[in-house]
Amino acid sequence: MSDTNKHFSGNETDVVIIGAGPVGLFQVFELGLQGIKAIVIDSLPHIGGQCRELYPQKPIFDIPALPQINALELIDNLAQQASPFNPEYLLDNRVIDINRLELEHKFLLTTDKGRHIRAKAVIIAAGGGSFEPVKLKIPGVEPLIDKQVFYRVSDLKQHQDKDLVILGGGDSAFDWALELQKVANSVTLIHRSARYRAAENSVQLVENLCSKLKMQLLTGQVSELITENNELKQLRVTGKDGVTRRIELDQLLVFFGLSPKLSLLKNWGLELHQNQIKVSTDSFETSLPGIYAVGDINWYPGKQKLILSGFHEAALAAFAIKSSLSDGKRVPLLYTTTSPIAHQRLGVNVELY
Amino acid sequence: MSDTNKHFSGNETDVVIIGAGPVGLFQVFELGLQGIKAIVIDSLPHIGGQCRELYPQKPIFDIPALPQINALELIDNLAQQASPFNPEYLLDNRVIDINRLELEHKFLLTTDKGRHIRAKAVIIAAGGGSFEPVKLKIPGVEPLIDKQVFYRVSDLKQHQDKDLVILGGGDSAFDWALELQKVANSVTLIHRSARYRAAENSVQLVENLCSKLKMQLLTGQVSELITENNELKQLRVTGKDGVTRRIELDQLLVFFGLSPKLSLLKNWGLELHQNQIKVSTDSFETSLPGIYAVGDINWYPGKQKLILSGFHEAALAAFAIKSSLSDGKRVPLLYTTTSPIAHQRLGVNVELY
Repeated sequence: MSDTNKHFSGNETDVVIIGAGPVGLFQVFELGLQGIKAIVIDSLPHIGGQCRELYPQKPIFDIPALPQINALELIDNLAQQASPFNPEYLLDNRVIDINRLELEHKFLLTTDKGRHIRAKAVIIAAGGGSFEPVKLKIPGVEPLIDKQVFYRVSDLKQHQDKDLVILGGGDSAFDWALELQKVANSVTLIHRSARYRAAENSVQLVENLCSKLKMQLLTGQVSELITENNELKQLRVTGKDGVTRRIELDQLLVFFGLSPKLSLLKNWGLELHQNQIKVSTDSFETSLPGIYAVGDINWYPGKQKLILSGFHEAALAAFAIKSSLSDGKRVPLLYTTTSPIAHQRLGVNVELY
Repeated sequence: MSDTNKHFSGNETDVVIIGAGPVGLFQVFELGLQGIKAIVIDSLPHIGGQCRELYPQKPIFDIPALPQINALELIDNLAQQASPFNPEYLLDNRVIDINRLELEHKFLLTTDKGRHIRAKAVIIAAGGGSFEPVKLKIPGVEPLIDKQVFYRVSDLKQHQDKDLVILGGGDSAFDWALELQKVANSVTLIHRSARYRAAENSVQLVENLCSKLKMQLLTGQVSELITENNELKQLRVTGKDGVTRRIELDQLLVFFGLSPKLSLLKNWGLELHQNQIKVSTDSFETSLPGIYAVGDINWYPGKQKLILSGFHEAALAAFAIKSSLSDGKRVPLLYTTTSPIAHQRLGVNVELY
């Protein structure tokens, strides 16, 4: 993947997109089709967001008309698709403030690197990057993090032939337990109760493996980390019956779910639904006029955190912004197969024969 | 494209999808991911719908992560993506009736070829195929259709070096006028008033060409077709001022928009918005429980007739149907990158390293 993306050095643009993940990149394309110039700000030093951070080489199967593609290829394709619109990026910058400039009908965004940018609209496409894992709260855990205690799996090799304990009762805990038992020496899955939030089928698969003694499923809570020479050796686990037992392990993986890095969003006054930003499904505008949210960070009834949904949301947000910047005039749909304006904007010369 | 699609010979399935266009095909995939079996019925003798009928070789630029793909390739990719779920097709069959079997909680569908199929849910993905062009109502037009009078452009070569008159004031009329002037001998665009519904930029481009005498833009209505030996030679056009003039031409192209083949939909009792079926944006269910609509045929606030939107709608409809068939239980999102159940259903063995 090329990191020769054009760096934004100005202080004014039509639209600022916060987040350079797949949805943010497609948002550039959709705005470009509408003739609207956008820049993308991301706190990471490269484009691609969580796709590139968390599962760059893993195949994705549910992008329409791409039966199998890995995350890096997906990002490359999206960057290529946006390229006719010469996107400019402000990477390694975190937006720390958004202020409305009432007189100018604009927003002033400020980043942690002291950049100030004026824009007519803001689209939050910050996705999974706006969330962090819920932490295990137990004394002594801090120094072990990323050595023997993990909140995510970035490389399966790291866990090969190890004795693993996995904490959690949701999809991540069960899915990773199923994946990791293929490579680990042993996997013990511990949840505080026998009521799991994971998919029924996953629970079934885990229970089958347990009955074949290929995995262990326990009910209880970790009450102590037992270390020797700063190395984690055992967990003390208290069962529902009050009985405590010790479990030997090499590594502990914690999947308690995600919580949003909310402070910022709260400061901006956006209306939230649980951890996500509420939007309307006709425009993907938030409760604050002129501020939109697309992708995993938004919420509406029926919302699913699919990359595909983010793409659709980005398209409709572009129509809504175009209409808003044109004083509410109807925005015609330009079919990219036939519209000469779309061809002009894309810089393509469609062969007629 | 392979037409070796498996023919459905049964009389019962989980879900019937009406329409084998891109959205119908992706609907098979999304239902398959949810573990739901679907068949696809289409009145055409092949899959691909209007994509294949109207613009098989034209490039599409706005499918996410596919910077350029033509319609046939798109259909091929979608068929390949659906193939792990062994889709079965009932082609060359038009659904002429849908009845609710109250006791069984099922629907009974009847086709024009006398096939009867029971299903737990129905998804209408009939798209553009459910619409037909609004016709020019003037004596003598019938025998000229597809010879000298056209309601659509299927092959630009057919219009090369001809003197063309185009009727209409919307995007299709203006877009095709711009395309056709590149190959035709002359293009005259006639609309009943000087108020156009087309995109402002298209109108601008046409007006520029008119000022360079490369095109003509007239206000008026066709009052007579003048033929010689059954061949169309001239149009009589009445202007707003009541003055009538004759215009010589080789071919007449009519773009008055589309009207729905509505009789069926009306019989079924579906609530409509103008020409489209009203759906809710959380489930894409219509006003009739158990009947869903996705793609160009549906309507909700903000609706755009994008293939991308149809894909997103198909995904959410699959979640809603899964939930409905599981007595309203929460349906977990199975990430195709990590979920062992998704991998099992897709029949893939994801390499861990």
